[in-house]
Amino acid sequence: MDDLLPGMLDLARDGGDTLTRQLTDQLRDLIIRGRLAPGQRLPSSRQLAQSLDVSRNTVSFAIEQLAAEGYLSLSAGRRPMVAAGLSLDRRRISPQGNRAASARLSLSAWAGSLHRASWPPVHDGRPRPFQPGLADEREFPHDVWSRCLRRAARNAPLRRDRPINHPPLQEALLGHLVVHRGIKAKASQILILPTAQSGLTLAANVLLERGDHAWIESPGYGGANVALHAAGAVVSAMPLDAQGMAISSPRDAPRLIFVTPSHQYPTGRLMPIGRRLELLRFAETTGACIIEDDYDGEFHYEARPVAALQGLAASPRVFYLGTFSKATYADIRFGYLVVPEALIDVFEIAQRHMGMLTSITMQDALAEFIGAGAYLGHIRRMTRLYKGRRDRMLQALAAEAGDRLSIEVPAGGMQLLARCQTNDRQLSARLLEAGVVSRPLSNMLYHRTGEQGLFLGFAAWNEKEIDQAARILGRIVR
Amino acid sequence: MDDLLPGMLDLARDGGDTLTRQLTDQLRDLIIRGRLAPGQRLPSSRQLAQSLDVSRNTVSFAIEQLAAEGYLSLSAGRRPMVAAGLSLDRRRISPQGNRAASARLSLSAWAGSLHRASWPPVHDGRPRPFQPGLADEREFPHDVWSRCLRRAARNAPLRRDRPINHPPLQEALLGHLVVHRGIKAKASQILILPTAQSGLTLAANVLLERGDHAWIESPGYGGANVALHAAGAVVSAMPLDAQGMAISSPRDAPRLIFVTPSHQYPTGRLMPIGRRLELLRFAETTGACIIEDDYDGEFHYEARPVAALQGLAASPRVFYLGTFSKATYADIRFGYLVVPEALIDVFEIAQRHMGMLTSITMQDALAEFIGAGAYLGHIRRMTRLYKGRRDRMLQALAAEAGDRLSIEVPAGGMQLLARCQTNDRQLSARLLEAGVVSRPLSNMLYHRTGEQGLFLGFAAWNEKEIDQAARILGRIVR
Repeated sequence: MDDLLPGMLDLARDGGDTLTRQLTDQLRDLIIRGRLAPGQRLPSSRQLAQSLDVSRNTVSFAIEQLAAEGYLSLSAGRRPMVAAGLSLDRRRISPQGNRAASARLSLSAWAGSLHRASWPPVHDGRPRPFQPGLADEREFPHDVWSRCLRRAARNAPLRRDRPINHPPLQEALLGHLVVHRGIKAKASQILILPTAQSGLTLAANVLLERGDHAWIESPGYGGANVALHAAGAVVSAMPLDAQGMAISSPRDAPRLIFVTPSHQYPTGRLMPIGRRLELLRFAETTGACIIEDDYDGEFHYEARPVAALQGLAASPRVFYLGTFSKATYADIRFGYLVVPEALIDVFEIAQRHMGMLTSITMQDALAEFIGAGAYLGHIRRMTRLYKGRRDRMLQALAAEAGDRLSIEVPAGGMQLLARCQTNDRQLSARLLEAGVVSRPLSNMLYHRTGEQGLFLGFAAWNEKEIDQAARILGRIVR
Repeated sequence: MDDLLPGMLDLARDGGDTLTRQLTDQLRDLIIRGRLAPGQRLPSSRQLAQSLDVSRNTVSFAIEQLAAEGYLSLSAGRRPMVAAGLSLDRRRISPQGNRAASARLSLSAWAGSLHRASWPPVHDGRPRPFQPGLADEREFPHDVWSRCLRRAARNAPLRRDRPINHPPLQEALLGHLVVHRGIKAKASQILILPTAQSGLTLAANVLLERGDHAWIESPGYGGANVALHAAGAVVSAMPLDAQGMAISSPRDAPRLIFVTPSHQYPTGRLMPIGRRLELLRFAETTGACIIEDDYDGEFHYEARPVAALQGLAASPRVFYLGTFSKATYADIRFGYLVVPEALIDVFEIAQRHMGMLTSITMQDALAEFIGAGAYLGHIRRMTRLYKGRRDRMLQALAAEAGDRLSIEVPAGGMQLLARCQTNDRQLSARLLEAGVVSRPLSNMLYHRTGEQGLFLGFAAWNEKEIDQAARILGRIVR
């Protein structure tokens, strides 16, 4: 063996890996593959160094590394020994191939159901008209944002005290939300989260016991449905009437109600004050809490944005959820959740336990972006632009699809619902083949109904793109 | 009333809010406070404009906004009417004060238990010696990083196709992990997550059913304990022996085993190859999966970092968890989880459903930071620096505390465990008063034992700071 070992090693002297490293890796590999057996002794490091024509240090370092990793046993005055008791034949450990063994890893029931989820729809490649949910990021002031980011990163060394929710961002955002959304809160009530979806996950886990009842709108937002399911809630779908979620006397009182009162998702309907108060009274009576998702509440075209439910509530039971991804662009994904003052502590601990923290550098950059007026300026500019695009979209669809589509004019937001009489999933699939993205209404309905329609985004495309895609849509619809 | 209303309004003409806005807000407020009653008619907009000395448009816009929000009813040829059926007295809705009402919001059992959690320890203000878990961010190349960030933000418009886990970062990180940590994987197996903690949450929710058994080390990492509890696992604490987690025949076979084999948290022990293989065989036999947390596996002082368990496993049942926050600095919080190839899809859907997505701009900046060599360069420089600080810390503690502390020399990482014979919680509290942060070993033990000790970080402080804090520590220990 002492003579054989050097022949099993092959050290390259091409300046790539160091000799110590090569020797360590090759010896380890020989042990792992069973070519050096447990209990077997290596040559002394002096002998090995001589045979390999390397320095004694090179060999010693390799031997010590392998001893530290447990592959070799060392004892004073004796040659290094391959550690006893190692059974290293990896094929003996698992006779199956990797894929079969992995299939044996059992998943939770929730994870096992995920392959059937229809949310979120994922479209590979660049976004295409009329993919819903997208702001026009070509219009976003990337330069201003990149300067904010650079400055925030450079200032990082000055900011060694870091609460997880960055007070300057909380302050800047609160200023915006109070004036423009009618929020009533202190800055410290705002949690900054990786995404709005993680805010839903967090709130559901803090507020719901498994088996608790929760309400969503139908048609409604799939992200709420999946987050509530993930938290173990029993989810009931509440149909809409003209004012939004219809509140009926429930068999099982909900512990949590998810609503989109600013522009209902996906119909775009505004929940009027009467229904808002009815909902709040219902929640007070039953002890339910409300998650108000104001996902694109910034963009309102007929008048100024309607004040949020959160600011109307008599007692702190409304959790206001927002996102930066609509008012800025899709990659500034942070969400925020305004929680009742009495629950700040529990939510911040929960945020840490679930790991839903975000970079303070990013938070600081956003604080500057808002504080310097770039945020509001962008929202104002986009509101004008998107309103024009909504109107162009209405015109183009009327011209191309005529009465095949019946469109609810949305009072705000970035998308509209075009109802139709034909199978919307088939229609959506045919549109996709032709390069036009839509979301079938059927996939957003959580109760039995014959409603069909297409959910179409208009904000991210210019008038030419809208006209072109509308022509394709018209051809396929007719 | 027609005469009274103008007197109830007070419009400022100081260039602050627009007149329309002031009028809308004030009318809404009068309705909300019940001073305009449901069913009551307002003056005509012409009359109101005249009395207030504002333009007719100003009034019309306000009236339309309030009608859109549902506060007013409009019908052609008649004066606007406060909407009927609104009961708006907020005190009648909830007689209690806000705090009392909020206390009535029920929380999940998990959330209700959070106030008792001893993890994470939160220290307000700037970090102080010897707070564990911190890299020295004064040494971090903030300028290089801020250039990477700025470039990534500027390039954002070119990157409209955005998989949630950014392939350039996956590739760059894989290259690093293969060479330096012995990982065996394809780039697409790497998920990029907001934090390592969110990776634990994600894995626990995908892999565990509520009530499943999970093992952690004792003493061990509190973050794993709380994440597994949050996912509903029944957590068993496995005591350590000299080689790390002792594997005993369990009453209840674990579905998941959480280990820190590179440097056990908090003892700093290296798990040798024999125990590694024993653990892998045990997992194969029982069908358990393993989360290998390599939280600061980059820093190894005696030899080069030991290869990860993930690369040794015969079948894909090891989930390798890492973080950027130790090898860069605390604010680059992203974690990553290497999952088996067969489970990429289910993990990516779960990632979306739980909202654990991160900014592609940040991911792209990290890809460049790694690709350009800044990451490895920083790790190499910090390894030398931290090794020197570890040695200085050992010296200083020996000199100041003598045999009151018994220290296990950690082979790597950023902290060490100093065992003592006195009540470690009291000791830690007294140290904190004197400005020295430590973590009592008792808070990291999950089984009954009399062990006591202090967990001390040495990486983030220079030699002078180490000497000073060690003097304080010595004074209090003796």
